[in-house]
Order: sequence, then structure tokens, then C-alpha cells
Amino acid sequence: MSRNHRDGRRPSGPHSRGRTSPGSSGSGQWLYGFHAVQAALSNPRRFSRRLLATREALDALRRAPAPPTGSRGAAALAEAQPVERVAVDQALPHGAVHQGVALQVEPLPELDLDEACSGTAGPVIVLDQVTDPHNVGAILRSAAAFGAAALVMQERHSAEVTGTLAKAASGALDLVPLVRVVNLARTLSELKGLNYWCIGLASDSTTTISEAVAGHARIVLVLGAEGAGLRRLTRDGCDQIASIPAGGPIRSLNVSNAAAIALYAAAIR
Amino acid sequence: MSRNHRDGRRPSGPHSRGRTSPGSSGSGQWLYGFHAVQAALSNPRRFSRRLLATREALDALRRAPAPPTGSRGAAALAEAQPVERVAVDQALPHGAVHQGVALQVEPLPELDLDEACSGTAGPVIVLDQVTDPHNVGAILRSAAAFGAAALVMQERHSAEVTGTLAKAASGALDLVPLVRVVNLARTLSELKGLNYWCIGLASDSTTTISEAVAGHARIVLVLGAEGAGLRRLTRDGCDQIASIPAGGPIRSLNVSNAAAIALYAAAIR
Repeated sequence: MSRNHRDGRRPSGPHSRGRTSPGSSGSGQWLYGFHAVQAALSNPRRFSRRLLATREALDALRRAPAPPTGSRGAAALAEAQPVERVAVDQALPHGAVHQGVALQVEPLPELDLDEACSGTAGPVIVLDQVTDPHNVGAILRSAAAFGAAALVMQERHSAEVTGTLAKAASGALDLVPLVRVVNLARTLSELKGLNYWCIGLASDSTTTISEAVAGHARIVLVLGAEGAGLRRLTRDGCDQIASIPAGGPIRSLNVSNAAAIALYAAAIR
Repeated sequence: MSRNHRDGRRPSGPHSRGRTSPGSSGSGQWLYGFHAVQAALSNPRRFSRRLLATREALDALRRAPAPPTGSRGAAALAEAQPVERVAVDQALPHGAVHQGVALQVEPLPELDLDEACSGTAGPVIVLDQVTDPHNVGAILRSAAAFGAAALVMQERHSAEVTGTLAKAASGALDLVPLVRVVNLARTLSELKGLNYWCIGLASDSTTTISEAVAGHARIVLVLGAEGAGLRRLTRDGCDQIASIPAGGPIRSLNVSNAAAIALYAAAIR
């Protein structure tokens, strides 16, 4: 699967989800925030380039569980010298809440869907054109909390993997496989072939999420963008449509909150 | 209850949660985004000053359900002339996603806790030092979706009511009473006196949230800041501590996601 730079749209500064050749000048993206950086350092699949950390943040990272011996994360942590806070500021987009630490990394190697889903019975989350990096990051975080197998998004019309997304994910970007696909309808079809029951969330269904998850060993939760909801082909690709029973004066939930509730409903089934 | 300006900390630009005297020059704060503005115009308790909207946004507002006849919202909508998008940009903090519409308003009149809780059996949410306006806004939105009676925060060490918070709340700021109190422990005591069962959320409890909400007609959900969690006095003021069963490699959920799950657990009890 090829991946192209999209130079026109970079939601939060000098990040790129394009695959850059290691060693090329200026390659890599910046992750920031303690949990995001600590998880990246500890991920043996993550190629860490350079760690920028204040004395306090560096001490905290060195007190945390150590990265795998011999990994790039271990090397980056060993090589780092404390820097002033302003040096971290300058490496990142204006206003990034970095907690004194930033890590320049290469994008994670991509996983195929069947690789990501093997070895775990956790739910799969599929996002249909959810573009807000805070929401996608928060959904990744909930996915990690509930032991989800993977988060699937389209290559296009989805949030880019930026430092903003990684910060909101609070380390989960390095814990939950993020799979990018060309065609969501085809992906749902593949997941059905892997014995998943695909549940689309929409507020107009009279089936509740707790009814929909009952009795199925492997579950896919499909969520659309706020406002637009699930696109027709995505909706048609689901086995079942379910809603979150609420009853108050606002009908629609924030998409990351809807995802958290659906994951919880699946966890307690 | 007096309310003071806090000039030192304004998370998102020219907003103020201070009570300003109507008519004073430059008073009022700006709300923005379609849902936030539409809800404010429709709220008979809301004093709307001035509406800035592009032609497209103004048309959309005029197609939406009309504000109460004779209200300030109805007047602001009637008086508005379409403006260029740049005029909306200039009234707001840099980068505000305003969807072509901004409304200058006075802060809502304050409600006491017993006023807010009368007439509804919905849950009350209490936030202990949650400072992120996106999170508090998202929690208000879920509170509206699940028909919560009120959201309670401390006067100090809590998110300010800004345009950012109102935008994240997607109209819920004008639907769910936001009650600010001096002392949370005293508030929990008052709520117990009103026959509420106060449940604090903490990941170290072996009681699950679904067990905790069962069998109680009126419920308070108490959530602490991420990282810090509930402060000792707040925790001690709860009737019961409960956790959200998750089981994945990350233990802590985003606070707005935890609130959404707790509200859902209360709704399906």
C-alpha cells in the first residue's frame, strides 16, 4: 500500500504522516507529552530519532519502566542531554502542551488488518471520515484502555497522525495498531470474513448498543463523523445499526464519547 | 456568591467568566460555532448582545427553530446583517473554528444547586479541578445528551466558561445548568441531603460503575482531574467509589470519556 505526502493540509504544524526515508534530512515527526513519548520509547517497533527533554522530564523518563534493551528507544533515552524548555517549545507547533518533552520519530511500520487482528479477541474500531485529531487520539486512548485489537481509518478524509493526535492518545498510538485502508466497505467485508460482527453507530436506530453487542465474540464498532454520520456505503456494509440510548435535549454525542460508550458496552457484555 | 475577574489566565482569548455589568463598554463574551450560538439565541435566560454571521450562517440560523418571541435572542437574530467571514475571525481568538457565526453574550445568571436539581431526576455531575475547557465542554454535551440535572464545579481551579468550552459543549452550555461552588465537599454533603447517592470515579476500586448506580433513584457522578484524580476530601465525601472496568494496557480514560461512560451506565441501570 503506497502512501503519499499530502502537503496541503497539516493540521498541527511540522508533522507528516508521509513515509519518509530514514536518514533523509529533516525526516521524522515530533511526538510530545510525557505519556506519548514514554510509550514511543518503549515500543520496539518504533524508530526513535532524537529526544528533547528538560532535566525534570528526563529524570521522570529514566524513572519510568526502561525501553527494551538494544532498542532505538533505549539509545535515544541514553543519548539525551537535558535541554531548556524553550528548546522543546521551538521544535513543536506553537502552543503544544509538551510537558517538557518531545521525541522525533519515524512513522510506525504499517500493519495489515489481519496481522492487527490476530492474537486478540478485542473489538475493532472503524472510523468513517473522522478528521479531528483530538477525537481520533482520544478514541485511540479508549481503544487501548478497553484492549481493542485495532483502529481502522481510510487513507483519505481522516485525521493525519500528528503530534496533536499522539498527545490526545496519551501513549495509545504506540499500543493500538492504526490501520489505514483505501476502502472502508471492502474492509468491513474482510472483517466479516474474519468472523467479526460489524455494528454501525447511528442515533436513528431503535436497537441499542447493548442489544447489538450481546452474543457476539468478535465485534467491530463503526463510527461516522459528527454531523455527517456514517456514509451510505459504510452503513450498508454493517451487519447491524445500533444507537446509544440517551434521552436528553441533545441527540448527538461527541464521537470520542460515543466510541468510549460503545467500547464499554462491548466490555461488559 | 461573588465572582471575581481572574485576569491572569484566559485560556482562549477575549473571554471572561467574570460577571460584567450589562451596558458597560466591551462587556460580554463571544460564543461561536453553529450549535453553541443557536442554543444561546434560543435560551430565554441568555442575554444576547450582538450576532455576527456570514450570509450562509445567518440563513441557517433563520431556518432553525426560532428564539422565543420578544427575547434578546430573537432581537439579536432580527437585527443581524450578514458580515464577511473575516469580521467573525477578527472578533474571536486566532484559530477558533466558528463556522461563520459568533454571538456576544452576557454570562448566564447563576443557579443555586437546589434550583438546578429541582424538577428533574437526572444525574448530577461534579468535577473536581478539571481545567481543560475542551473536556468540560464535552462533558456538558454528554450531560445534555443524557438529561443530567446539572454540572457542578468549584469556583477555583476549574475550567473557565469560554468560547472554547461553549463550542465543545455544542449548545449544551445553554441547556445544562452549570453551578459553581466554593467547596465541593460541602456540596456533596448538600446533595446527600437531597437524597442523592454520590459515586466517585477512581480506577482503584473493585466496585464497578454499573454495580454502584444500581438501585439508586438520584445519582451524583464525581470525577477528578486526569492524573491527580479525586482529592482526598472529595473522595471522602462520596458514598461510594467505583471504577470503569476496562482491562487494556492503558488504565486511565480521558475524563470526558469516563464521564460519558458513567452517564451511560446510569442511563441503562
